[in-house]
Amino acid sequence: MKTLFILLDGVGDRPSQILNGLTPLQAARIPFLNALARDGSNGLMDPFSPGIPVGSDTGHLSILGYDPYKYYPGRGPFEALGAGIKLKPGDVAFRCNLATVNDENRVVDRRAGRISSEEAAELVESLLEVKEVDGVEILLKHTVEHRCVLVLRNGVSDKVSDVDPHKDDVDLLWPRPLDSSREAVRTSEVLTKLLKRYRMILEKNPINVRRREKGLQPANMLLPRGAGKMPELPSLSSRYGLKSAVVAGAALYKGVCSAVGMDVVEAPGATGTLNTDLNSKIKTAFGALKSYDFIFLHIKGADTAAHDKDPLTKASFLERVDAALKKNFEPPSDEFIVCITGDHTTSSLTGEHRGDPVPVLIWGHGVRVDSVNRFNEVDAARGAIGRIRGLDLMNILMDLMNRTEKFGE
Amino acid sequence: MKTLFILLDGVGDRPSQILNGLTPLQAARIPFLNALARDGSNGLMDPFSPGIPVGSDTGHLSILGYDPYKYYPGRGPFEALGAGIKLKPGDVAFRCNLATVNDENRVVDRRAGRISSEEAAELVESLLEVKEVDGVEILLKHTVEHRCVLVLRNGVSDKVSDVDPHKDDVDLLWPRPLDSSREAVRTSEVLTKLLKRYRMILEKNPINVRRREKGLQPANMLLPRGAGKMPELPSLSSRYGLKSAVVAGAALYKGVCSAVGMDVVEAPGATGTLNTDLNSKIKTAFGALKSYDFIFLHIKGADTAAHDKDPLTKASFLERVDAALKKNFEPPSDEFIVCITGDHTTSSLTGEHRGDPVPVLIWGHGVRVDSVNRFNEVDAARGAIGRIRGLDLMNILMDLMNRTEKFGE
Repeated sequence: MKTLFILLDGVGDRPSQILNGLTPLQAARIPFLNALARDGSNGLMDPFSPGIPVGSDTGHLSILGYDPYKYYPGRGPFEALGAGIKLKPGDVAFRCNLATVNDENRVVDRRAGRISSEEAAELVESLLEVKEVDGVEILLKHTVEHRCVLVLRNGVSDKVSDVDPHKDDVDLLWPRPLDSSREAVRTSEVLTKLLKRYRMILEKNPINVRRREKGLQPANMLLPRGAGKMPELPSLSSRYGLKSAVVAGAALYKGVCSAVGMDVVEAPGATGTLNTDLNSKIKTAFGALKSYDFIFLHIKGADTAAHDKDPLTKASFLERVDAALKKNFEPPSDEFIVCITGDHTTSSLTGEHRGDPVPVLIWGHGVRVDSVNRFNEVDAARGAIGRIRGLDLMNILMDLMNRTEKFGE
Repeated sequence: MKTLFILLDGVGDRPSQILNGLTPLQAARIPFLNALARDGSNGLMDPFSPGIPVGSDTGHLSILGYDPYKYYPGRGPFEALGAGIKLKPGDVAFRCNLATVNDENRVVDRRAGRISSEEAAELVESLLEVKEVDGVEILLKHTVEHRCVLVLRNGVSDKVSDVDPHKDDVDLLWPRPLDSSREAVRTSEVLTKLLKRYRMILEKNPINVRRREKGLQPANMLLPRGAGKMPELPSLSSRYGLKSAVVAGAALYKGVCSAVGMDVVEAPGATGTLNTDLNSKIKTAFGALKSYDFIFLHIKGADTAAHDKDPLTKASFLERVDAALKKNFEPPSDEFIVCITGDHTTSSLTGEHRGDPVPVLIWGHGVRVDSVNRFNEVDAARGAIGRIRGLDLMNILMDLMNRTEKFGE
């Protein structure tokens, strides 16, 4: 038995006036998804807990069956995954801001005057000359605007305090060890040295010289925060004995899925944005089902449109997903189920993740067929699945695949 | 107020092609159960947790309100209950295989060449001459095929290792104490002596002599495993102050219900199989409601048919249940509720317990009436109960009986 799991990022929504009081899923013409809903089981899912909005990181952990309370290491490591850094066991990752500090190391602007992605990328590039401090390997990667990710590798600890004071007009906080271990002391010493070297490099950088001349805030310091190590996640194969892979555009989802032991199958033209090549991704996913038991196909666009508060674009993106699914739907020769759901609601009204449940649809071999015949947040609630939690979804799918173990006799 | 709780073992299922894509419950003509659904509250229940298949033991513990994580003592004691052995506090029960070992105590066949129930029963009979070893009382009972149950009574411990190596072609493992208590040491010594005596008796048994002559594996050793004590379960009467009884065919269900303090009411012709006398069981249950507050009526047949991968027989058995219920439905003079549900899904596709939810129907005094008018896994999902967990069911029923205590003021 095989499973195709299609994760429509941010698929849930709230009704919009521009859609006549409907959600994007309700308003979209999605005949193929509706046909799967008609012939399958439907329900609602709280990715983590009712009314609690989750991030992409905690949402994906939950839905893959890993309790974020137990396994979520804070944002640093997931930010690193999202930046495409392959974390090794023991690596400590930090989220960082490029910031403006004055000569007394007072934080003048935590975001360096909202520096552009282009300038920030070039500044971070100049910092890459520092590859090592006292035997600790240094990895740094710019992401977007003033943000970047720092990873320390080799004998380091995540028990080290935030340098970022989380507000302007206060002193930056030099790193302090948060326990008495040798590693924590060493990590804070290395980090302090590193930040002082970064400061020197940044001050001299021509971009900052130009910014000062123009009266703009120079990005002359890095403020790390949220130190964390990637926890050891028991693999899906050790849990359920299956061979699994992810098809995704954005690095974060490949990273999370890799962390639970999935292979990464690349789809040409998968960008993780609205302009992604949906045909390529779906075709790749079905192709991969020939050699894998479980394929996790991540599609990002609906979330992006909702973050832009654009329910019309969200609805039309979902229509494109529907058409591409119909066009490329090629069931494997084995018995087969498809699960389609989201990792959270993204509200087109506020542009933010919200805690409303998302629809969940399971179609295929051995699945009870209910009377729901449309795939959306409202019709789903009448279905045979009822309302479940994200943490239970993988057990439900694995049970449909007859891969769960009986508890008791 | 009185409650009749009807437990249809293994009632949930998955759709079968032979039933035109319906489950046995959906396909069966069950007008009386449907009428109860129409006039009652309906929902789905996860006996333990979504997607997790439970055994009859853990399923019944959950549904009776006892968390198996806390109260499930492993398989030995429940196997003993199933064999009809009344366990006393302190008794240690083991599951055992009749097995073939060679002269060096190497396990040649853990199942003694799949010995028949008849031969195995006779061999076990010959072992009953050993009633006591060093002051420890010995109880032994054959169940089916190569399987039997051993109970040690009086000053014994369940901290003793498995003798069964769980695979062939390795040495059997003589019992070892798993903690340093006097009882654990004593138990492993007594068990070792007992097994050596059993070996001598079995080697000489004419059945084994004949089996050797025919070139079959002799059942010349007993391999115990899964030592466990029955935990002390707080009784239903101490929890809810009610007088309760069970009507069941098979010993396991009488045993579990006895363990939570229910009386056992015998129904003539109750066999715990497909040929059970349903009229007798249902009549007995209604009769017992005159002197009890709570009757637990266990009906096994649907589970048996599904284990045989026979959805047609499952559906027709459910039709017989429906007819017998209609015929013998005699509400007591008191206010009264009926709850009908299952302890797990048994898939007619695989013949195994699976983790899909089961329908739950509550009918009677004070019960909200929803728009569901059929009793099955799919319609139930639209009902007024929603999707609940097995552990919550008894509180819900006791609350309808106005027997729960307020938490807070």
